[in-house]
Amino acid sequence: MHAIVPSRLIERKRDGAALSSGEWQAIIQGYVAETIPDYQMAALAMAVVFQGMAEEELAALTEAMLASGKRLDLTGIGKPVVDKHSIGGVGDKTSLLLAPMLAATGLAVPMISGRGLGHTGGTLDKLEAIPGMRTDLSLEEAVAQLRTLGVVMMGQTPEIVPADKRLYALRDVTGTVESIPLISASIMSKKLAEGLDALVLDIKTGSGAFITDPEQSLTLAKTMIAIGESHHCHTVALLTAMDRPLGHACGNALETEEAIMGLSGSGPSDLMEVTYALGVEMLIAAGAERDRPTAQHRLEQVVESGAAKTMLATLIDAQGGAAGVVEDPSLLPRAPRAVPYLAHRGGVVAEIAPRTIGHAIVELGGGRRTTEDEIDPSVGFVLTAKPGDSVHEGQTLGTIHAQDEEGVRIGVAALDEAITILDAGQATPLVTHRVTLEGVERLQC
Amino acid sequence: MHAIVPSRLIERKRDGAALSSGEWQAIIQGYVAETIPDYQMAALAMAVVFQGMAEEELAALTEAMLASGKRLDLTGIGKPVVDKHSIGGVGDKTSLLLAPMLAATGLAVPMISGRGLGHTGGTLDKLEAIPGMRTDLSLEEAVAQLRTLGVVMMGQTPEIVPADKRLYALRDVTGTVESIPLISASIMSKKLAEGLDALVLDIKTGSGAFITDPEQSLTLAKTMIAIGESHHCHTVALLTAMDRPLGHACGNALETEEAIMGLSGSGPSDLMEVTYALGVEMLIAAGAERDRPTAQHRLEQVVESGAAKTMLATLIDAQGGAAGVVEDPSLLPRAPRAVPYLAHRGGVVAEIAPRTIGHAIVELGGGRRTTEDEIDPSVGFVLTAKPGDSVHEGQTLGTIHAQDEEGVRIGVAALDEAITILDAGQATPLVTHRVTLEGVERLQC
Repeated sequence: MHAIVPSRLIERKRDGAALSSGEWQAIIQGYVAETIPDYQMAALAMAVVFQGMAEEELAALTEAMLASGKRLDLTGIGKPVVDKHSIGGVGDKTSLLLAPMLAATGLAVPMISGRGLGHTGGTLDKLEAIPGMRTDLSLEEAVAQLRTLGVVMMGQTPEIVPADKRLYALRDVTGTVESIPLISASIMSKKLAEGLDALVLDIKTGSGAFITDPEQSLTLAKTMIAIGESHHCHTVALLTAMDRPLGHACGNALETEEAIMGLSGSGPSDLMEVTYALGVEMLIAAGAERDRPTAQHRLEQVVESGAAKTMLATLIDAQGGAAGVVEDPSLLPRAPRAVPYLAHRGGVVAEIAPRTIGHAIVELGGGRRTTEDEIDPSVGFVLTAKPGDSVHEGQTLGTIHAQDEEGVRIGVAALDEAITILDAGQATPLVTHRVTLEGVERLQC
Repeated sequence: MHAIVPSRLIERKRDGAALSSGEWQAIIQGYVAETIPDYQMAALAMAVVFQGMAEEELAALTEAMLASGKRLDLTGIGKPVVDKHSIGGVGDKTSLLLAPMLAATGLAVPMISGRGLGHTGGTLDKLEAIPGMRTDLSLEEAVAQLRTLGVVMMGQTPEIVPADKRLYALRDVTGTVESIPLISASIMSKKLAEGLDALVLDIKTGSGAFITDPEQSLTLAKTMIAIGESHHCHTVALLTAMDRPLGHACGNALETEEAIMGLSGSGPSDLMEVTYALGVEMLIAAGAERDRPTAQHRLEQVVESGAAKTMLATLIDAQGGAAGVVEDPSLLPRAPRAVPYLAHRGGVVAEIAPRTIGHAIVELGGGRRTTEDEIDPSVGFVLTAKPGDSVHEGQTLGTIHAQDEEGVRIGVAALDEAITILDAGQATPLVTHRVTLEGVERLQC
């Protein structure tokens, strides 16, 4: 470990210099060992917000964070190891479809996910809507399950990138979350700890995404790809639309149910389009398929044959959950009130604002204001109307799922605000860009 | 007090917004009460380094810092209260001359000073070279002495701007010292706590100053003046040369001796020029005189009459020191070795680098590396040659004062490095700019 003077490194970063690999290593080691206090790390993080990081610096920071903890040791597993990561959206339940689908094709999927915070949902919360389902697996349990089943869906363990756990909590209260290099190092260090051969990133764009500027989304994608590739993890990103919720269901149990429908062959078309687009990239990035049509066909096969749904049931069972939900979704918690929401006027659905929907779920009790909040998995919305759909006055656009009349009122008010119907309008594309180390490919305009 | 969410304020400052007066008040109150932790303050300070502060913000921050502690209550003292502050140099003993001179003219001078750090000296260290001299007066002692004597020279007390004490220590280790607004708020809050009617700032410029860029020096001057004037303290700044040491003596006891010589009418001409320039501004800013020649004459009078020297003796006696030093400077500590330093060649003295001299004093034991270091007041240099002087080979340029042969070697090596003799050269002006709320007046080029 280099002997460093933290204040000098902060000054150099402040003045625009790039710190060396050894310096970043010493900083992260010192931070975890608590020889570098929070106040120095906070000042350094703010300097990074303003000065950014050179590509090699970022690779070094990610490596140092990765080295602060343990990795999944999947040596000799004999299959490609692949995962996908989304930077957060509303109604995005693609992880619940992709993990079993990819595992059913014979790949290993070590999916370590997070909880919802703010207006966006989290995979762990959706999984935990299944009665009995455990997501707090230890690293040893995870490795064992991956070797037998080929798939695990779980939360972060204390052994994985402890530096990120501390740094993320610090950034959250020091105005240093909004930094593409720091976001990238945080996500990628955790993903690389999974020991991946390939990673597909789902970068959400549009009003409901954390990053609303498409240029910034592209920069984030390129930054994360550079880190992944420099760590021998083949990394590809798709930019997908988050200017509307994905699929119909928004809310934890409702989304889990919709994911099961998807695995049964009856998912909403927009959800399935994004799911297949990501799944195809996962198969190709992992080297399991060479061309898109074959990859797509292989994924459709595991859905049609029921293999993917069976894989989900096996996964749920292995993690202590009620596997029966896969055949009988009514085993999932249901809110006592389910009230249709009707169109105020005829026309074309021009907008369904995801942030408004996401915040309403929090208000209904289905999301968190702080990380300590308990959530109600049953509440939310099922919005069958999509942007671009022609509707007539009084037509049912969706259903509000709430605990009581007050919840219904909150839901109605939210949908009144979120849904805009105009005389004309059209749907915009779902998957817009594909980003690799080689460059950006524009898919749909 | 406003209810604030510190992380939101950090984000707004990061994004370039100006925080309100109430918000700065809540931040400083929270910081002193420790409800706002160091890591949030460090991130905020770094955001200020990059985004700066609007003038009203800075006035509000200074006011909030001032409000964190007590002020000198000089109500009814019946004379103008005035001080001067220098941002640090080498050989600068003007405070030791000005406090007794101004007090002798009938003004009140509550001079709260600091210690040397880095390559620059500090007034407290020079005073403490006088045997028995106390500088750790309480606020009550200070007020009592000001009311009887009209002058006090002391260190900061814990009651004065406690927010600055904590914030300065934090900035020192988080790369957030170099911020003109934060430097200004730190200095001005402490000076305003003295209850001043007028303040004269001595902004050092040139290679030996903390700020070497003249444009930055002007910005600092204007920033501090704006704060002072907004707090009803008439504030004027002079920009003075720190591309050479001021006067001949560099080192604590040697400088105190030179200050006594100055009060006896035999100080080096450059020292006296800067001293009178600052003193004239102090008399005029305090409203005690209207024009420069009269002000200058009044100051010369208190020197010629011996009144200023007597005032220094009275001040030393009041603070427990050996007042006899004023008549017999040999009572000051003297280093055992005093060795002349000779010119290597003939020519004109082109440069005497103040930083090199300052760092050598630290190496000789006469300055601090950390705030805990004990210092040896006796060591240093007396450099009788000045830039612009014609010298012949072998001429004595000055004397090295050291504890032993090793110290002499350090001193010789430092002077070899610091002093440049060329074929030709000329002295540059000492007092270059006068800055007031109205603007900048260029005095000498």
